[in-house]
Amino acid sequence: MDFWYEFASTYSYPAAMRVQKLADAAGVALRWRPFLLGPIFGAQGWNDSPFNIYPAKGRYMWRDLARICEAEGLPLALPPFRFPQNGLKAARIALVLGEKIGAFTRAVYSANFAEQKDISDDAVLSEILRKLDLNPEAAIATANTPENKTALKAQTDEAISLGIFGAPSFTVGNELFWGNDRLEEAIGWAKK
Amino acid sequence: MDFWYEFASTYSYPAAMRVQKLADAAGVALRWRPFLLGPIFGAQGWNDSPFNIYPAKGRYMWRDLARICEAEGLPLALPPFRFPQNGLKAARIALVLGEKIGAFTRAVYSANFAEQKDISDDAVLSEILRKLDLNPEAAIATANTPENKTALKAQTDEAISLGIFGAPSFTVGNELFWGNDRLEEAIGWAKK
Repeated sequence: MDFWYEFASTYSYPAAMRVQKLADAAGVALRWRPFLLGPIFGAQGWNDSPFNIYPAKGRYMWRDLARICEAEGLPLALPPFRFPQNGLKAARIALVLGEKIGAFTRAVYSANFAEQKDISDDAVLSEILRKLDLNPEAAIATANTPENKTALKAQTDEAISLGIFGAPSFTVGNELFWGNDRLEEAIGWAKK
Repeated sequence: MDFWYEFASTYSYPAAMRVQKLADAAGVALRWRPFLLGPIFGAQGWNDSPFNIYPAKGRYMWRDLARICEAEGLPLALPPFRFPQNGLKAARIALVLGEKIGAFTRAVYSANFAEQKDISDDAVLSEILRKLDLNPEAAIATANTPENKTALKAQTDEAISLGIFGAPSFTVGNELFWGNDRLEEAIGWAKK
């Protein structure tokens, strides 16, 4: 099963925090697939999060997310400075980390949605990398190579070709599931 | 618990077919609250269903709905002539039926999503009313009074004032839940 996520995405936060545990329990192999929603939203004529463009939907999302986090025992403290945050750097770094991508991804979501940190800040990302026993300078340098920038674009193009239009999404072959609340169903599909 | 629905809404179909059963099993009193999405979508600049405006989202919705209906054992056969159908007449009629509103609502959803019938056709609506031992002429006449048209507008305004932006929605006091997949959570909230 592929887990498609965008670091700015609110519902990707609870999904990222529980996806590995559920996949392991079900014996389902998991691939972490960061991508960018910006180009997808832009193609729909949106230059901001739909949760900002449509205020009633946004108000509901924050309340719904609070209920989900409470039920999951997840802390939720919103960054006071901006929503959505810019997840481009984090996505590029995630792509070069190999097997530590899951731990890095969870730490970035915690920084964004629980610790009120700026995830586009090199210092914040470096601290996360250091705590994972990774060399921040090397990881960031590799993340910023033209090859890796192209790889993230290709990953986003692959998401679009699979019909993905939001995050989090899960795919099993060509079968698409959208939303944190479809995670169990996607895992059930992967076990078939 | 209030169940807010629009007869054109796809995800309201599985919600309408199971809401009474779940509410009864939980001992939760249920109010059926038809409203119109047209004015709400219009205020957002949409003059069509978002599932038509955003094709990737629409393709996903139809696949997701098919999976849901299969899991629920519900037939799903789309009307070949139009999506979304016009649910205005059905909503006005539903509002005057008293305790038969649930049975009427389920029959209209079956007509729309399983029997490929035009739910804006007086003959289709009359047949549904007759099968419920109601007088179609009397019900339609009452539905078309200025008072009842105003009542449906007021119900839609009440939905907006509760923060509702889509269907199906469920409210328990001021607590809002959106989507067929939040029905169990809404019932749990109502039992608190």
